Amino acid sequence: MYNILIGQSGGPTAVINASLSGVVSRALEKKDEIDKVYGMVHGIEGFLDGNYIDFEAELEDDDLEKLKVTPAAYLGSCRFKLSNNFEDEVYQVLFAKFAVLNIGAVFYIGGNDSMDTVDKLSRYGEKIGSSIRFIGIPKTIDNDLMYTDHTPGFGSAAKYVAATVKDIIWDCGVYKHPSVTIVEIMGRHAGWLTAAAMLARTEEEKNPMLIYLPEHAFNVTEFVESVKEAITKTNYVVVCVSEGIADKEGKFICEYGVQAGVDKFGHKMLTGCGKILENIVKNEIGCKCRSIELNLPQRCSAYMTSNTDVMEAFNAGSYGVDAALKGETAKMVGFKRYGEGYNIEYVLVDAGSVCNQEKKFPDEWIVNEGRDIAPKFLQYVLPLVKGENTTRFSEGVPEYVKPIYLKKKQYN
Amino acid sequence: MYNILIGQSGGPTAVINASLSGVVSRALEKKDEIDKVYGMVHGIEGFLDGNYIDFEAELEDDDLEKLKVTPAAYLGSCRFKLSNNFEDEVYQVLFAKFAVLNIGAVFYIGGNDSMDTVDKLSRYGEKIGSSIRFIGIPKTIDNDLMYTDHTPGFGSAAKYVAATVKDIIWDCGVYKHPSVTIVEIMGRHAGWLTAAAMLARTEEEKNPMLIYLPEHAFNVTEFVESVKEAITKTNYVVVCVSEGIADKEGKFICEYGVQAGVDKFGHKMLTGCGKILENIVKNEIGCKCRSIELNLPQRCSAYMTSNTDVMEAFNAGSYGVDAALKGETAKMVGFKRYGEGYNIEYVLVDAGSVCNQEKKFPDEWIVNEGRDIAPKFLQYVLPLVKGENTTRFSEGVPEYVKPIYLKKKQYN
Repeated sequence: MYNILIGQSGGPTAVINASLSGVVSRALEKKDEIDKVYGMVHGIEGFLDGNYIDFEAELEDDDLEKLKVTPAAYLGSCRFKLSNNFEDEVYQVLFAKFAVLNIGAVFYIGGNDSMDTVDKLSRYGEKIGSSIRFIGIPKTIDNDLMYTDHTPGFGSAAKYVAATVKDIIWDCGVYKHPSVTIVEIMGRHAGWLTAAAMLARTEEEKNPMLIYLPEHAFNVTEFVESVKEAITKTNYVVVCVSEGIADKEGKFICEYGVQAGVDKFGHKMLTGCGKILENIVKNEIGCKCRSIELNLPQRCSAYMTSNTDVMEAFNAGSYGVDAALKGETAKMVGFKRYGEGYNIEYVLVDAGSVCNQEKKFPDEWIVNEGRDIAPKFLQYVLPLVKGENTTRFSEGVPEYVKPIYLKKKQYN
Repeated sequence: MYNILIGQSGGPTAVINASLSGVVSRALEKKDEIDKVYGMVHGIEGFLDGNYIDFEAELEDDDLEKLKVTPAAYLGSCRFKLSNNFEDEVYQVLFAKFAVLNIGAVFYIGGNDSMDTVDKLSRYGEKIGSSIRFIGIPKTIDNDLMYTDHTPGFGSAAKYVAATVKDIIWDCGVYKHPSVTIVEIMGRHAGWLTAAAMLARTEEEKNPMLIYLPEHAFNVTEFVESVKEAITKTNYVVVCVSEGIADKEGKFICEYGVQAGVDKFGHKMLTGCGKILENIVKNEIGCKCRSIELNLPQRCSAYMTSNTDVMEAFNAGSYGVDAALKGETAKMVGFKRYGEGYNIEYVLVDAGSVCNQEKKFPDEWIVNEGRDIAPKFLQYVLPLVKGENTTRFSEGVPEYVKPIYLKKKQYN
């Protein structure tokens, strides 16, 4: 009998709490093997400060069910990179704290950096002969983790992007006068989420007419020509761009505005690439143009989750518990697609091989000289966005589980 | 027996098509009095170009039901102001076109400017002895029309703002380090929609800590002091501002950045007030700050509609048809609240008294020296956001009726 410890790390997705729910639910079922279920408050960083909770003392009624569709990170999060040097005292401190709490397994829900944490802790543990197991549960809207078909969080963000871009397309067409609308979508280095805007396109409406990902060098002159051509085909053009598009020298388009933009107090102003491109269209083409940065809601909104994503995120958590109980460590739970149609097998991959790598959007799915996405991507992404949200509402707004940092004053 | 003509005008709301559905549904029920039901494509402007449809030829299956939760304007829209001079030939042309189609009643769904159109057409009609009735159906997310308790479109936008701000609050609290998040909400002159962010606040979480409306002069120094104070109370501060906040000289805060902001091509860059305030917080307070402009989705998204709003928008349309059949003209359909709880009576108000006025957010509901909203507003707004969306999904994304400008190539 031992206790387990769970943490959440990095930017939350719409389903990071579904994974938490999966870990906790499964652990509470395993009463013969697992005693207490602890949660780090604010990840490794908060745990180092002595902040953790006992789930059974905190959970009420059907919180574990409601957590599946609760946004943000119930436990709070952190951005904390463990030292590369195992002599750093942080390792001793952490393992001493694990020992005090009789921790037998640690689950860390996060992206690349979190897998780095899982990898380092398990390697340090191996070095000192610890029997603690470390399991990573993937999470990122960017879908850029290696060795897994996709990542929990991506499906819901993709569904949000698709639904929102569809509403934007529907709306932007109402006037008969020409217009260009630029939608800036998250993705600094990987274009998966921007590509999901394809889901908003039906055969007859060609919008979004142009889609640009960071994996392909962006050229402003080519962009202007493409928009000019697009506007001869429809009176309203919707363009989707990743925030991280860059020119062939690697300079981000969002940096094109930096040097000269200052506010009235002389402070430098930063702006997104969408705003830069809006300005270029207005000045080079002269037609009505607006830019829309989907911003935080595409990552954090819990009212457009994919039920497939929610269930898979939950299952990944519960699969992780089973893996730890079987003695697995230094692993991340991954997804493997197999057979005809859409079938997912849960697998374990080395956390160390996942971290510090990024899975780029495949070259062969970027078509039309970097301006469009191949239909094959639709076959890939469609199953991931299926199934509708089940959020409950109270007084007109969604009803969620209150995260620990809202519930307990000391964590706020 | 005569025919009727319907148009949509101005920026669409999430429920402008629900009102359209209400007019068409009721008109089709009145077969003994109304023959054909026509729709202007792209409002008065498109109708002048000869563009209109016959609804019965276009509608399929349960389109009228699906239209209730279809975003954008099914008929297309326009921004077209009729001349103040009745000698202008546009009036003769329009009434000639009405005569050719044997139009007995015109329904125009829109905001202030549309009511101006209804008013002018009915006055011109009276002048020339026409028997055509002109009825306005209100629509605006701004909730700034006079002589009506509220306007269709506001409830859904308010619900979208409330749900999105709640998700943002939940998300912004995940880190233990201090942060400020500024949410910029639509409302150039009226703060109703920004005030709806109050719905995201529960008693325990005080966020959004600060709410600024355009009805109260904005002072940057005071703002900085208020944010500094707020951040002593919680480690993450969410501030909601109307896009139209202005200083006591009437200068928009969004204009504070204009003079110096240029991109690398030397073009002037425009940015919202949220971005300006983000920059001010970063520089004056030095803590992490981000701004989020809710932008178009708050107006056009159809997946966070209030069912109360949808039903009222539909009913306003159908009430308008009944009014016209009773011989009413030059009227806008309005809402009157009565009795205990929430009860709405549909009434008729003079279109001429509505247009060219704006209903401001009441002074007595702006409290704490312009930094907060009185709880009384919650009693007002809560019934308007109740009831959840009923959008159907297909292949993971919402399924809508295809607007005429997507359906017919000549209107695109």
